[in-house]
Amino acid sequence: MKYCAQCGYEVVVKTPPGDHLPRHICEHCGTIHYQNPKLVVGCVPEWQGNVLLCRRAIEPRAGFWTLPAGFMENGETLEQAALREAQEEALAEVELLAPLASVNVPDINQVHFMFRGRLRHEQYGVGAETLEVNLFSEDLIPWKDIAFPSVRYTLECFFADRHRGQYQFHITTWRKSVAV
Amino acid sequence: MKYCAQCGYEVVVKTPPGDHLPRHICEHCGTIHYQNPKLVVGCVPEWQGNVLLCRRAIEPRAGFWTLPAGFMENGETLEQAALREAQEEALAEVELLAPLASVNVPDINQVHFMFRGRLRHEQYGVGAETLEVNLFSEDLIPWKDIAFPSVRYTLECFFADRHRGQYQFHITTWRKSVAV
Repeated sequence: MKYCAQCGYEVVVKTPPGDHLPRHICEHCGTIHYQNPKLVVGCVPEWQGNVLLCRRAIEPRAGFWTLPAGFMENGETLEQAALREAQEEALAEVELLAPLASVNVPDINQVHFMFRGRLRHEQYGVGAETLEVNLFSEDLIPWKDIAFPSVRYTLECFFADRHRGQYQFHITTWRKSVAV
Repeated sequence: MKYCAQCGYEVVVKTPPGDHLPRHICEHCGTIHYQNPKLVVGCVPEWQGNVLLCRRAIEPRAGFWTLPAGFMENGETLEQAALREAQEEALAEVELLAPLASVNVPDINQVHFMFRGRLRHEQYGVGAETLEVNLFSEDLIPWKDIAFPSVRYTLECFFADRHRGQYQFHITTWRKSVAV
């Protein structure tokens, strides 16, 4: 950020009085421009024991498999964001059952929030950002070609909970310095 | 937003090709300025069966009681944000035990995320944004003077879970049009 989004003057970086972190500040109009982490929201869509995955058509990680997920929009709830992404990326109608996992990704200022869900009917397709959509049984999940660590973690939690016969909410942190 | 934060030119509002929502776009440098919900993160700090609440010194809701919570910063995890806010608002050292509740507040583009925790020792004080800090037993919680619906919901979940002897993760949505 170089210019004030409110008045167009150049911003400076300094710590406001009473604050503890440097911010982008406009000394012309007084606006403090805070920058905060973004939420990426998605779900594990299950159908008759199988899990729906999408192969990404776009970067980052084009060609790799992911759960339907994306940036939450203003005005949405977490649930609405997860349902919209399933619709957009996999043309799938999902019923959400419960929150499943949250993954901190502080290196890129993101929090990923994933639900457990099920397809409302066996109907899905290829959205604009997707190359291919498929249902996978647990033993055929393409573990080597999973797009993101948070997707891998979410799938691991899902299958571990399913084996145990009890679902719960999980939380973890992924940092670039930590091996996946 | 009126001006491009990257180049200072005036932005326009239109839906980019392939997108489904209008965005602030700079037609000079091509930047699309996305705006996304913010995370407010906090915790329920317990000490020997009592819960620590802070009376707010600042607006919104100055004079009302809240759990220590605030905007998550870039580079933080959810846990780090909750611990920092407990330190800043109540000078309290907290150990987090588990995620407790998430509250969508789509009217103001926020998601509130609350942990269950406990004080590491019976030591706390009044932070810069706080008038007063106190430990409350369940029957003395100032329900009529709670600052925010998400704090009320979190406390209700906490006590209901504690009575049942089993904690879980809760999610709800609060809209202005819905009575508290």
